[in-house]
Amino acid sequence: MLKQTHLYQEIHEQPAVLATVLQQEKETISRLAAEIKQRDIYHVVIAARGTSDNAGRYAQYLLGAINGLTVTLSTPSLFSIYQRPPRFGNALVLGISQSGKSPDIVAVLAEARRQGVLTAAITNFPTSDLGQQADFVIDLHAGQERSVAATKTYTSELAVIALLSATLAGNADMLATLQQLPEYVEKVLTVNDQVERIAERYRYMQHCVVIGRGFNYATAFELALKMKELTYTIVEPYSSADFLHGPMAVIEPGFPVVVVAPSGAVLAELKSFMETLKERGAEIIAISNDPGILELARTPLALAQDIPEWLSPIITIIPGQLLAMHLAHTRDYDVDRPRGLRKVTETR
Amino acid sequence: MLKQTHLYQEIHEQPAVLATVLQQEKETISRLAAEIKQRDIYHVVIAARGTSDNAGRYAQYLLGAINGLTVTLSTPSLFSIYQRPPRFGNALVLGISQSGKSPDIVAVLAEARRQGVLTAAITNFPTSDLGQQADFVIDLHAGQERSVAATKTYTSELAVIALLSATLAGNADMLATLQQLPEYVEKVLTVNDQVERIAERYRYMQHCVVIGRGFNYATAFELALKMKELTYTIVEPYSSADFLHGPMAVIEPGFPVVVVAPSGAVLAELKSFMETLKERGAEIIAISNDPGILELARTPLALAQDIPEWLSPIITIIPGQLLAMHLAHTRDYDVDRPRGLRKVTETR
Repeated sequence: MLKQTHLYQEIHEQPAVLATVLQQEKETISRLAAEIKQRDIYHVVIAARGTSDNAGRYAQYLLGAINGLTVTLSTPSLFSIYQRPPRFGNALVLGISQSGKSPDIVAVLAEARRQGVLTAAITNFPTSDLGQQADFVIDLHAGQERSVAATKTYTSELAVIALLSATLAGNADMLATLQQLPEYVEKVLTVNDQVERIAERYRYMQHCVVIGRGFNYATAFELALKMKELTYTIVEPYSSADFLHGPMAVIEPGFPVVVVAPSGAVLAELKSFMETLKERGAEIIAISNDPGILELARTPLALAQDIPEWLSPIITIIPGQLLAMHLAHTRDYDVDRPRGLRKVTETR
Repeated sequence: MLKQTHLYQEIHEQPAVLATVLQQEKETISRLAAEIKQRDIYHVVIAARGTSDNAGRYAQYLLGAINGLTVTLSTPSLFSIYQRPPRFGNALVLGISQSGKSPDIVAVLAEARRQGVLTAAITNFPTSDLGQQADFVIDLHAGQERSVAATKTYTSELAVIALLSATLAGNADMLATLQQLPEYVEKVLTVNDQVERIAERYRYMQHCVVIGRGFNYATAFELALKMKELTYTIVEPYSSADFLHGPMAVIEPGFPVVVVAPSGAVLAELKSFMETLKERGAEIIAISNDPGILELARTPLALAQDIPEWLSPIITIIPGQLLAMHLAHTRDYDVDRPRGLRKVTETR
């Protein structure tokens, strides 16, 4: 019965969606990359909300680290409510939205058009309002997403950004690694049963914090959002650095903290952060492929494979999606129709 | 005794600090504004953590709406841990830090220097590492801040940003209004006794959400941070628009929500948002000078004066600071030395 939910199905469709989008959008993304180079663009402004905004966070780090682009997460209300749009200059303005419908996001792209700036949209509905404002439209190829909580559209958005980054860099290694992405995701999905057992322990958890840094800062935000949408737990995402600048005060013995820490440049930082957490008695759930990190956790969630750090957010979010889903089941919540939400949210 | 804490003293020093900084930094800010114009800069990259990052959020909206500048909140780990700094182009790179010491923030400015980009620092320690990397150093003139939770340095940072915006705009009205700021703040401090009474009701509150939008998006973040630091409550800040894209699911009868909604362009939006919250039985604490908004709240916190929206974040945060302080007192916490924090946090 659990496997008959849209959410379960959509989580498990991810390898197929990723294979499709990487294949089908290669050409559009190549043309977009060529245009970015030709115009010597090094500034990207992203307009997005919710899950898509978390994809924007991934873009901020990936396009920054790999491609030297400065990425701004835009402030839609300046365009919609205040009607005081800033100057974009020689930027790419990128809208990310599953539905392509939210008026505030469409408003940012419409203004970019008025300023004669290059625009692109990443959406599951290429003919949407958002798609119509964009010079380049990248289709998520996710098929209909019936569950209110986005899963397959999120990883498809990340894959599009990863493909854009690898293409811009002209990096054959990255492009080859990307081809293995559906397999990576297929493999990580096998943690499903383990996560189902683990979820029981957190049946009565009322709040927690999710920590990620660098590329997986996005994962912390998206995992927190899934938990809020599906389990109604109060979950706040943080970078380990920001958490030390004040919020650390909330930690007391037993306080649950999810740490997303696959191997990579930020690992040493996260390890020392986890040691501080442990000294203060926090209960740590770790998503990692590093033995040292997993050892520090009360609840280790092992990723049984090596993952290149730049691609890891597409893999580390999967145990997070499963955790949110199973935790919702422990509480007998409807995972396809969370209370108070609709699939398409239109905000000004 | 309550009045002998550093926190109480520093909250009440704010009118004097604001008067000083607005007077003393006028000339440096004029020179910085002239340089921004001369170089035709329309992109600002801000590096900051914690409270100072919230000042950056204010800058994002204010410099956007008033001055047409696109403002990016930077990703320090790209500069420090990953050592893959993006290209700044013709930007102003602005570091904001009370201590001027956090290595990741200093790293962003150092890289900006290497790229030959205009740099500025807003700090309480002009001779700090951060100050030494900046072409223009703006002194917060806050005197020593002894309480770990920043209050007077936050409003001083906002005042500096407001003065920069008004100066860049060459707007005599804005400049004249700014002169009244110390009086505005003096007046709002009279809510202290009312807030003290109100805090009792929330003695056992374990978590809440703080909502703001547009200029007061920054206030939501800063109020949430003060509550976390001082009261160890799990408090998550949100724009009303982002909250509708998923997190709304957490709302159930009795769920406490603080709404920061002074009069201005976002008021209609926030009012309709509060009506949705009320339908779902949320308990609303409202900080506002609008009778319609205050009527929707279970706990109205009235600002007994008209405030220009662009300056309102410097005023609306004051009841928030007082609320966090008094709530900490209801729980017998040490407001000057929250557990697990130090005044200067150095992160990589």
